[in-house]
Amino acid sequence: MQFCCCCNFLVLKPCYLYCPQIVRDTLQNDLKIMCKSSSVDLVTKTDQNVEQLIITSVKEKFPGHSFIGEESVAAGEPCVLTENPTWIIDPVDGTTNFVHGYPCVAICIGFAVNKTLEFGVVYSCIEDKMYTARKGKGAFCNGQPLQVSDQKEINQSIIATEFGSNRDPEIVDKIFSSMRKILCLPVHGIRGVGSAAINMCLVASGCVEAYYEIGIHCWDVAAAAVIVSEAGGVLMDVEGGPMDLMSRRVVAANNNIIGERIIKEIEAFSAVRDDAPVDPSIK
Amino acid sequence: MQFCCCCNFLVLKPCYLYCPQIVRDTLQNDLKIMCKSSSVDLVTKTDQNVEQLIITSVKEKFPGHSFIGEESVAAGEPCVLTENPTWIIDPVDGTTNFVHGYPCVAICIGFAVNKTLEFGVVYSCIEDKMYTARKGKGAFCNGQPLQVSDQKEINQSIIATEFGSNRDPEIVDKIFSSMRKILCLPVHGIRGVGSAAINMCLVASGCVEAYYEIGIHCWDVAAAAVIVSEAGGVLMDVEGGPMDLMSRRVVAANNNIIGERIIKEIEAFSAVRDDAPVDPSIK
Repeated sequence: MQFCCCCNFLVLKPCYLYCPQIVRDTLQNDLKIMCKSSSVDLVTKTDQNVEQLIITSVKEKFPGHSFIGEESVAAGEPCVLTENPTWIIDPVDGTTNFVHGYPCVAICIGFAVNKTLEFGVVYSCIEDKMYTARKGKGAFCNGQPLQVSDQKEINQSIIATEFGSNRDPEIVDKIFSSMRKILCLPVHGIRGVGSAAINMCLVASGCVEAYYEIGIHCWDVAAAAVIVSEAGGVLMDVEGGPMDLMSRRVVAANNNIIGERIIKEIEAFSAVRDDAPVDPSIK
Repeated sequence: MQFCCCCNFLVLKPCYLYCPQIVRDTLQNDLKIMCKSSSVDLVTKTDQNVEQLIITSVKEKFPGHSFIGEESVAAGEPCVLTENPTWIIDPVDGTTNFVHGYPCVAICIGFAVNKTLEFGVVYSCIEDKMYTARKGKGAFCNGQPLQVSDQKEINQSIIATEFGSNRDPEIVDKIFSSMRKILCLPVHGIRGVGSAAINMCLVASGCVEAYYEIGIHCWDVAAAAVIVSEAGGVLMDVEGGPMDLMSRRVVAANNNIIGERIIKEIEAFSAVRDDAPVDPSIK
């Protein structure tokens, strides 16, 4: 595996040369938009093209590796993290933003071996910000080192989260209730850019103290988790304890004090695990 | 009044050369943060310095003009829009973002004559995006013409709004209730970058279909209102009818269909008008 000397940037030149160009070119033209789980869960041909380009490029170099990609899983491929080296790919994180030309869209590639995340790359295409991190080697944005905020007071903090794409009234109740309790701690503000990966990179950059969400997928957070962790931050489950990559729940915080403080206010719920069998009759 | 030929950009060179530099320089250093109306309503020395620099520069050229500036009003200056040519200034829109290094901070200058807005400039300092508009002459970002989205379906729209800095439980109830009803129309998503002016410029750019908020001030929206309007959008009150610049309530939408649709879901409330007498015993 090759990294450049200054910032551990993974050498995946074909992907990072062509994929952002596909994304930016498409933004100039008409998009064919399709729906997935609901009328607000969107996918485009670009998502599928970018993922195929990444997988094809990587497979040429590493034919024995495994892949978990958002669009491959949507097309019926398994979503199971084994001990084999595995690339976890979100070709367009922030598809709703992408459809609207809203300037927060990221290509995310995480890499795990023995079920441990080893490196992550999040490229925010429109902002032209390349976030990279390798385990034990630090986190960077366009080559500049990243460091989380040193804030320990929740009432001096900004928290990032999202409303998500689930419109089930019981779920929406819990999402709004958690958000309200956190807002009234009080915190300085609540933000959400519409991309889990970019929200997490903002934690890594020290602009927001924490990000939490229930309903995200492993491909939304795998790459950014390494970036947060290497910038000095912490990753947790929304009920405390370590983050479970397949549980669809995450808290990414600058430190344990802030992370644990917001956990007290989050009304936790479960989402169907990413690695749940597709047919419930198959165990 | 001078404008350049290509984009009607107001010639205010001293302000737009030095003010963004003050903002960006301060982001590299420690900030002295002060509170205004509450512990989450922040101001810094930079807000005050930038406003003074703008007012001083403009006064040199136009000694007879009037000014309404966020920090001058906080310091006791009157906030009344007369028929005299009036500069309406927000030196740092998104002060909470500024304090946290969150990359959405804008310097806003609007200009009104006979109580009618004539031009507006919103400079998003960290993104380096200069939004400009002059009445009847179109709206631009870094010289490129802006056009609102042509979307007419609310369930294909993104709506921008903010939680604001008021933590009064009754107000927070109304803010969350409106947001929930709009989310469940359903819309594609709700976003908020923490700056009223940048939210409105995103409407003008066609990235979001509408923005609404109660609690903003005239200096947050004066400049951006011209930009929305010149990009083909509409401005309304949250209960319908024309926007009242001093009422602290705004809906900025791509068209009347989307604007009027979200108005049906907004739980309106009143804020103390910007032009209310400071001492309530004085009528």
